[in-house]
Amino acid sequence: MGDNFVVVGGDAAGMSAASKAKREDPDLDVIVFEKGEWVSYGACGMPYYVKGDIEELEDLVAITPEEFREERNIDLRTHSEVVGIDREAKTVTVENDEGTYEQEYDDLLVATGARAIEPPIDGMDADGVFTFHSMESARAVKEAVAGETETGPDPDRESGYGGEVEEYLDDETPESVAIVGAGYIGLEMAEAFAARGLDVSVFEMLPRVLDPFGEPIAAEVEDHLREQGVDLHLGALVDEIATEDGRVAAIETEADRFPVDSVLVATGVAPNAELAGEAGIELGETGAVATDEFGRTNDDHVYAAGDCAEAHNAVTDAPDYVPLALTANRAGRAVGATVAGDPTEVGDIVATAVVKVFDLEVARTGVTDHEEAEAAGYDPVSQVITAESRAHYYPGGKPITIEMVGDRETGRLLGAAMVGEEGVAKRIDSVATALHAGMTVEEVQNLDLSYAPPFSPVWDPVLTAAKVLSGKLE
Amino acid sequence: MGDNFVVVGGDAAGMSAASKAKREDPDLDVIVFEKGEWVSYGACGMPYYVKGDIEELEDLVAITPEEFREERNIDLRTHSEVVGIDREAKTVTVENDEGTYEQEYDDLLVATGARAIEPPIDGMDADGVFTFHSMESARAVKEAVAGETETGPDPDRESGYGGEVEEYLDDETPESVAIVGAGYIGLEMAEAFAARGLDVSVFEMLPRVLDPFGEPIAAEVEDHLREQGVDLHLGALVDEIATEDGRVAAIETEADRFPVDSVLVATGVAPNAELAGEAGIELGETGAVATDEFGRTNDDHVYAAGDCAEAHNAVTDAPDYVPLALTANRAGRAVGATVAGDPTEVGDIVATAVVKVFDLEVARTGVTDHEEAEAAGYDPVSQVITAESRAHYYPGGKPITIEMVGDRETGRLLGAAMVGEEGVAKRIDSVATALHAGMTVEEVQNLDLSYAPPFSPVWDPVLTAAKVLSGKLE
Repeated sequence: MGDNFVVVGGDAAGMSAASKAKREDPDLDVIVFEKGEWVSYGACGMPYYVKGDIEELEDLVAITPEEFREERNIDLRTHSEVVGIDREAKTVTVENDEGTYEQEYDDLLVATGARAIEPPIDGMDADGVFTFHSMESARAVKEAVAGETETGPDPDRESGYGGEVEEYLDDETPESVAIVGAGYIGLEMAEAFAARGLDVSVFEMLPRVLDPFGEPIAAEVEDHLREQGVDLHLGALVDEIATEDGRVAAIETEADRFPVDSVLVATGVAPNAELAGEAGIELGETGAVATDEFGRTNDDHVYAAGDCAEAHNAVTDAPDYVPLALTANRAGRAVGATVAGDPTEVGDIVATAVVKVFDLEVARTGVTDHEEAEAAGYDPVSQVITAESRAHYYPGGKPITIEMVGDRETGRLLGAAMVGEEGVAKRIDSVATALHAGMTVEEVQNLDLSYAPPFSPVWDPVLTAAKVLSGKLE
Repeated sequence: MGDNFVVVGGDAAGMSAASKAKREDPDLDVIVFEKGEWVSYGACGMPYYVKGDIEELEDLVAITPEEFREERNIDLRTHSEVVGIDREAKTVTVENDEGTYEQEYDDLLVATGARAIEPPIDGMDADGVFTFHSMESARAVKEAVAGETETGPDPDRESGYGGEVEEYLDDETPESVAIVGAGYIGLEMAEAFAARGLDVSVFEMLPRVLDPFGEPIAAEVEDHLREQGVDLHLGALVDEIATEDGRVAAIETEADRFPVDSVLVATGVAPNAELAGEAGIELGETGAVATDEFGRTNDDHVYAAGDCAEAHNAVTDAPDYVPLALTANRAGRAVGATVAGDPTEVGDIVATAVVKVFDLEVARTGVTDHEEAEAAGYDPVSQVITAESRAHYYPGGKPITIEMVGDRETGRLLGAAMVGEEGVAKRIDSVATALHAGMTVEEVQNLDLSYAPPFSPVWDPVLTAAKVLSGKLE
């Protein structure tokens, strides 16, 4: 009888861990409990499913439950919710359709993910109000706006997902939608709804969209959203979703009332850390599970990874909570290797992110917020520049705006955000790499980055930003 | 009487140095000698001028002579060739239309650039044979293939370039062109000629195109060239350009004869280092001028920068000759600052390059050639992977092939090359940045790079390459 490895949660972190552990140590029994039926799915693709770029929800699935079971020899148990952890007995309590049982573990990974925050607004349970954090919710939104009467996945598909889908009950498709929250999902969904022909309004209680990208970048995104016909309400706290006959009728803010016939609430996510917290596993200040460099919690046999866990930010040198897909995949994979006997660090994050907003690419990395930088002990200095994406004479170039931030005392690069119609999404990666390396702004200015007229000016916009910021830091 | 700064050569390195020096120290007399009439032009754009993407040759000029003279207060003397340097007297000998004179200098920058190598082939001086390294040559090629009778720039244009243009004498535009050499310029010109409707054949004496990008990447470029209708002759040494009545008739190799009616010879460039060499300034093993970290030669008052000079390669930790635009601009700017009293290092290179070949983006950085890596003391290990440019479910993704090379002993990243239809040109920059930082392949694998479905898989292709190579290095 070999050891076993029990994983709670079957998405990015959980399935990466399970797969890696089993591959490294085929004798290890690997058991994954997933409370729903979907595993290893690309939640980041859900807006594009609603938009219509992706036809079937099942297309978002990278690896099916059958493949995990049959090809990877993982004991994957769907519709099985872990409701308790007994660290002394080293067991978890599992609920499924048939009842409750205890499962022993040698090593345990908590990969319970995150959930959509539901703000305390009256009217959240009205017909026509949606959140957007599960595959089921994505299907419900698509059915609502596409006016299709899908009844579930094609039974011939190999994925074999069942048909537990809430059908949208109203025959009429909405003509307008109010999105509450102007983060990634809110703005990706604005694009999706607009493509579906809806009138789109966005309500954000902060004074700008995409808060972690900083004001200069947000301002360009806001201009673009307005050009695309999106009605933006910034600094607007939604008081209530007004209803008529149980159905959405209007968004009410302190100042005004805006009639709409559907609402998407996308006000961020919170870590599903309760299971761990109730078992006495330490949570960090962010509210997510605290972990060490191997993804281990305060219990040597309990790991946490993915959207329920903290990660170490290389710029602030402190724990951080940035629930994104790569971090989850990487941490899960590292935990799987560690459990299988090859201790592997989960790696630092620098909070790199990119989002498509209609025709814009919007990206960030590191620390650009001055308060956050000061809290981490830096003396931040910002510089905003605009440069072209191509050589000045090469047709088709688009402006790229970059805010870059450095530390006055040490000259160290702290972060950057950028926006433009081309060449932004992957341009941020050289800055992210420089952050991992702890480079100074001057060192960034001296990077030998690629140049050819169709792809960049001779001085890449990143170099130009570093050059100007470097002058300011002297 | 303040000091002066004399610059030989008015392109990227020379004009960057002159501008920076004058900006830092407005009292400094800055004199630039340029033997031609064009200064500060984007030679990298010339293929796109021939192709027709760029209408006027003057569009390639970033800053005109008048702007340098009037706005930047630089004493720019065009049609003035420096033919000698007397380091003891600290003078240069200048030839212009009116005669010869001596100019004293306090600090001197040699920025004499590079020239097209003309291989010793019979028939090089036939009608219909072109090289491609000056603005004049670009105009001649465009006139030949576009069948236009341009007689020089618009006299109303502010640039004021005169009309010293060799007119193409033949009325008939060619129907076919043989390109000798499959480097950057050869392949960019293949695209330009094909867009002009010519039958294009390429003759390369090496067994592959784009030699510095390595075999796996070159193979994909070759397939693409053939798909585009380019007739490729690899490992084909051109013996002779056969002529009829003084005009190109055919390319002759050892094996065969290929009728063509025009030829472009693009067999690389060589540094214009003779002026420096004859003055006793030390040249490096590469044949270019040897420099220290400030771009200084073995004479404390003589600097060299740009396509005539060596630079320090951070991967090999040795002098290297990679004549590219950014290196020239950066080194020139640093020399300008140094001469103006602010000692500034020119910065290392890692030999990053990108080239567009029809629909492909082809990029490289660092050391990928095993012999070169071994000569630098490494034990190189290569890994080739192919991954998608977008999430698997997001439409429009294209495969990206990456060869990544690391050192077996230390795990250090040595270089990478990649090719694909999108997302390659700037993706190479994170690898370049990692090379500057001396990262290991494992550290690259753990970079927090950007992810969103339209721009990348969760694991960016660079991370996937590093992950697989890292496994091989263990």
